[in-house]
Amino acid sequence: MGKAGGLLMMDANDVIKEVNTYLTGLLQKDMDVYAASRHLVLAGGKRLRPLMVVRVYEALGGDGREVIPAASSVELVHNFTLIHDDIMDNDDFRRGVPTVHKAYGVPLAILAGDLLFALGYKAISDSKPFMEDERKFFRAVNALSRYVIELCEGQNMDIKPPAEFNDRYYFELIKKKTSSLFMLSALYGVYGMGRYDLEGYAEKFGENFGIIFQLTDDLLGLIGNPEVTKKPVGSDLREGKSTLPIHLAIRKADGELRSRILSVYGKGADNRIMEDIVNRIRALNIEEDVKRIIRVYLNEALSALDHLGSGDANSELRKMVEGLVERQY
Amino acid sequence: MGKAGGLLMMDANDVIKEVNTYLTGLLQKDMDVYAASRHLVLAGGKRLRPLMVVRVYEALGGDGREVIPAASSVELVHNFTLIHDDIMDNDDFRRGVPTVHKAYGVPLAILAGDLLFALGYKAISDSKPFMEDERKFFRAVNALSRYVIELCEGQNMDIKPPAEFNDRYYFELIKKKTSSLFMLSALYGVYGMGRYDLEGYAEKFGENFGIIFQLTDDLLGLIGNPEVTKKPVGSDLREGKSTLPIHLAIRKADGELRSRILSVYGKGADNRIMEDIVNRIRALNIEEDVKRIIRVYLNEALSALDHLGSGDANSELRKMVEGLVERQY
Repeated sequence: MGKAGGLLMMDANDVIKEVNTYLTGLLQKDMDVYAASRHLVLAGGKRLRPLMVVRVYEALGGDGREVIPAASSVELVHNFTLIHDDIMDNDDFRRGVPTVHKAYGVPLAILAGDLLFALGYKAISDSKPFMEDERKFFRAVNALSRYVIELCEGQNMDIKPPAEFNDRYYFELIKKKTSSLFMLSALYGVYGMGRYDLEGYAEKFGENFGIIFQLTDDLLGLIGNPEVTKKPVGSDLREGKSTLPIHLAIRKADGELRSRILSVYGKGADNRIMEDIVNRIRALNIEEDVKRIIRVYLNEALSALDHLGSGDANSELRKMVEGLVERQY
Repeated sequence: MGKAGGLLMMDANDVIKEVNTYLTGLLQKDMDVYAASRHLVLAGGKRLRPLMVVRVYEALGGDGREVIPAASSVELVHNFTLIHDDIMDNDDFRRGVPTVHKAYGVPLAILAGDLLFALGYKAISDSKPFMEDERKFFRAVNALSRYVIELCEGQNMDIKPPAEFNDRYYFELIKKKTSSLFMLSALYGVYGMGRYDLEGYAEKFGENFGIIFQLTDDLLGLIGNPEVTKKPVGSDLREGKSTLPIHLAIRKADGELRSRILSVYGKGADNRIMEDIVNRIRALNIEEDVKRIIRVYLNEALSALDHLGSGDANSELRKMVEGLVERQY
């Protein structure tokens, strides 16, 4: 353990372990809807959002163990949205296991999502700072509602995209779909410590963290190494996703490559053909273009982070956001 | 307007009008998910739950206008569960209009339910007493989470019924599925006035109100007059629903009628045949049997109501619960 704002910082593995213990306890009931909920929640996941809650709380001088349920709250809500999104997108696999609706059917999957959403609210009040100070609780609950509304709007934008890709729509979408729960995580941390004055910095940190997370994810979805991503080569291209890296590639490609890209976009092709196209996209240096954009958001995230406490936990947050950019392609 | 605990009581039509105005405002955004949400929310409904919130608050001496958003919160949650239940049950019509998933597709219907659920939490903090006193807010939010969890468990019981009908399962199911939101409504009223000492009475009133509501509804579903119910004769019998009135009829019928009932149960038949069977069930006097059971719950509800304030609003609550029993068959 290291020191954080004068207090001991939890080991990341201990955070994950304690979050998993709390989640297991909440979901242990012997009913189908609980089994369906456990299916995804306990199938893994990096627990990035819970870690962010704990680290922000610690960076401001709090004892991370006090916010394990609030940290788990964000994870519950995250899993609720994944389960419902997978139904809407008709996806078959997630975290290496069949999606909940494939394993338990659509009715139980809808219900499992609803249950996890309600448990997400319940978990807030299991956390010491939010249990003991209703003003903190008031802020946290309202932030949760606000960001789930954002998520719903983002999902709406995702299932009804405009005919033509445009950058503004893309960035608004990822702020709503990906940044929302990171913003919420950082807010839980500052609310837990009663530091309402830091609300704006928490939101700025979470928003930029989410954008970087999604941009790197979308870069991986285009040019990622199948051995690292565990997905087929050029998977976002095959699925016809509307991401910035894909559209940068389409814009930058010469006429011949552009028509080859468009010929497999949303349709896919043999691995050999896909590999050839993806290699030619790599040669366009899309990675450098995206990383140049990411650096802008990284600077924003780090300048917000300067205001979110100090010590080892603050350094951990810096490592988390920098670690996103260094993911292997 | 009448007097309630020393204050003026709102006219029921004004409550409904103000709830509808609040809901319309909340859902006015120009996006598909909001349109899908408005589709059911603004298609009608008796607004019984919002009325209960207002009346309990008034009976304890409050000004009903202060809790219109909290009253609307229960209605939002009620509509969220209806939309998701209709997808799970694959129902085509509700309140005389196509169900949300029939009109907008399953993805937007799932999303509309999620949005309404989040808005249900948001609405609590729009209400004066809950905005101004975070301790009241804390209680209300935790009650909302608790009762949505109950609703999810109830829906789970509903989609996975036991092979054999049993009364205990039936009553546990309707407490979870129907009583939950009436319990929540009565709780909002007492929490709004800070009368935490009346929690138990609010729950008892709401629980029994819900049981009576469902028993009369299930009686109507068996022997209701199609002109009143706007449903085909013997509709619950056709759909194979597992209700107490149906199973009372099966138990009470002689061998020949019992096999005729079972031959149409869950399968349906010509209107002429159904009408004949339902008439023979009516002759068994199932209505009197069910009403005898209802009177037990009515006494419980009224004895709880004696503790929930006084004046015109308290009398209105009595009329509401007595009115359930007097619904036309």
